[in-house]
Amino acid sequence: MTALKGYAAQNPKDKLAPWDFEVRELGPHDVLVNIMYCGVCHTDLHQINNDWFPGIFPMVPGHEIVGEIAKVGNHVKKHKIGDCVGVGVMVDSCGGCEDCSHGHETTCSVSPVWTYNSLGLDGKPTYGGYANAIVIKEDFVLRVAQSLNPEGVGPLLCAGITTYTPLKRFNVGNGHKLAVLGLGGLGHMAVKFGVAFGAEVTVLSTSSKKEQAAYKLGAHHFINTSDQGQLDSVKGEFDFILDTVSAPHDLNVYLQLLRSNGTHICVGIPVEPYVISPFSLLAGNKSITGSGPGGLPLTQEMLDFCAEKDITADVELIDIKDIHHAFERMERGDVLYRFVIDLATL
Amino acid sequence: MTALKGYAAQNPKDKLAPWDFEVRELGPHDVLVNIMYCGVCHTDLHQINNDWFPGIFPMVPGHEIVGEIAKVGNHVKKHKIGDCVGVGVMVDSCGGCEDCSHGHETTCSVSPVWTYNSLGLDGKPTYGGYANAIVIKEDFVLRVAQSLNPEGVGPLLCAGITTYTPLKRFNVGNGHKLAVLGLGGLGHMAVKFGVAFGAEVTVLSTSSKKEQAAYKLGAHHFINTSDQGQLDSVKGEFDFILDTVSAPHDLNVYLQLLRSNGTHICVGIPVEPYVISPFSLLAGNKSITGSGPGGLPLTQEMLDFCAEKDITADVELIDIKDIHHAFERMERGDVLYRFVIDLATL
Repeated sequence: MTALKGYAAQNPKDKLAPWDFEVRELGPHDVLVNIMYCGVCHTDLHQINNDWFPGIFPMVPGHEIVGEIAKVGNHVKKHKIGDCVGVGVMVDSCGGCEDCSHGHETTCSVSPVWTYNSLGLDGKPTYGGYANAIVIKEDFVLRVAQSLNPEGVGPLLCAGITTYTPLKRFNVGNGHKLAVLGLGGLGHMAVKFGVAFGAEVTVLSTSSKKEQAAYKLGAHHFINTSDQGQLDSVKGEFDFILDTVSAPHDLNVYLQLLRSNGTHICVGIPVEPYVISPFSLLAGNKSITGSGPGGLPLTQEMLDFCAEKDITADVELIDIKDIHHAFERMERGDVLYRFVIDLATL
Repeated sequence: MTALKGYAAQNPKDKLAPWDFEVRELGPHDVLVNIMYCGVCHTDLHQINNDWFPGIFPMVPGHEIVGEIAKVGNHVKKHKIGDCVGVGVMVDSCGGCEDCSHGHETTCSVSPVWTYNSLGLDGKPTYGGYANAIVIKEDFVLRVAQSLNPEGVGPLLCAGITTYTPLKRFNVGNGHKLAVLGLGGLGHMAVKFGVAFGAEVTVLSTSSKKEQAAYKLGAHHFINTSDQGQLDSVKGEFDFILDTVSAPHDLNVYLQLLRSNGTHICVGIPVEPYVISPFSLLAGNKSITGSGPGGLPLTQEMLDFCAEKDITADVELIDIKDIHHAFERMERGDVLYRFVIDLATL
């Protein structure tokens, strides 16, 4: 067995606290990644709190991992000791279903294995990135260019790929008007990618305090959605709305802002269901789509694109002992734009 | 003025009764269409009953019109006396907005004018096809091939184009698995078009009584959705679900039947809103889209396609005096598949 240490919740809603745990020995296709940084995603808190479904405890959260290959199994070919690498939301999948065989591992219909709060193909719980290291199949480890500042790379593996995926799926770019709803961890990556792809980007936010921050990220326009006049001024305006909001919100309001045949892309996961008037969809043939993070090939493509364009997340580094303070600030949106745990503080 | 006669509801929820009314004189670009047949659409009843919004009364319903050109204005170029023609859900639009200038008049963002229960650009109410004739701009009149049996043509103008439009928008055809939810007026047209386009078509219905009828229309498979085992057998199966149901129903059940990236197309208009779990969309990146009938160029394309493939609606002809009995039977789904009023009985 491999002895690791991290921060875990022993039970639902528990505070995280130091925890020593064991995972499997390195198999021939496994690598040991020493974790340097791990982003703090809102889903970490949702899962600790059992907001969506009963979790597996003790739970070591974290799926925005950047680190260094410290050890390789006998047959590992893709990575060597010392490589800078990333691990995102998944650590395994069936490999054989239609989605897996097309590189869409995150929609594996047989046995997707999430980075934490999941059962591996061996039936053992998985533990995430709030830890000193992770043992993982080499195929689920992404290459990270040396040129990127590793502090800002972790959030690319969830916030980044979650927004990159739908923008690529719908070929968002030149000539498109893209609205980004919510300017948090996901929203700020959506703005960066939207701008990099050549779209005309508008940030929609309930808070006018975000206006200058939006422009600083490269957004072309800003709409304060609390101001009905501003909202009315962009009715029928957008080809796409990338909705990153996890708090309850009325989609019917935003569907009005789409042009005919426009698409509202949901990447946030509110606890409450969406309530949608049939007319909101019918008037203008509008669509709502859900979108999760893409699979391994797309994630590698994104990391390579980020290296080429020098894109990373804007982050605030924290000591792991301050994780609860960070959770509190994250819940009230008080972070520009992602907390990242410096695992050297573990 | 032009004197017409028809059947009207004088007030919301009233029974229809004979009514004499007047509409404008023929302008230089107008034609007078003598109505031969008019399909009975569920929206006729919804609008008489003010189910969606307050209507304009007296109301002469009907937007599945087939008839013969009886008179033409001085500058009419597209039609001549004696031509067999169709009129669908619209009789005018602004003509200048982006949608109109691309031939998408039904999503005109300025002033769409519906065939009835609407105000024309002159501010006067419009009256529909439960009448002996209609005065209408020549541009909104469609050509109907002489080879088609006119009795079955009226429903193409609403039920037909409403199902044809999304199937064309998403290029549904060879290699696609299409489910048609509900086998009424819209559903039976969706099956005919899906089959004609080369898709593998499954009918989903709450009633096993529809099974033989589905196969007779050309469907390849039938699933009784009241049987959980049958439902489970098609989880993750379909590329598209064309949902023609106007009664309340739980979309989350059907979203599970889609493959990854699959699309649930809503063409029915339930009175209640849809309640959708974010996970139903997120798991497999699924979409819900609304879809109304396409514009004039697409409607003409559909009529020409129907002529080429000899496709019409399966109808039951009625005397206009029996309209309330037909409404009752329509409400309990007791019609194969569309009532059509024979206006010779007026």
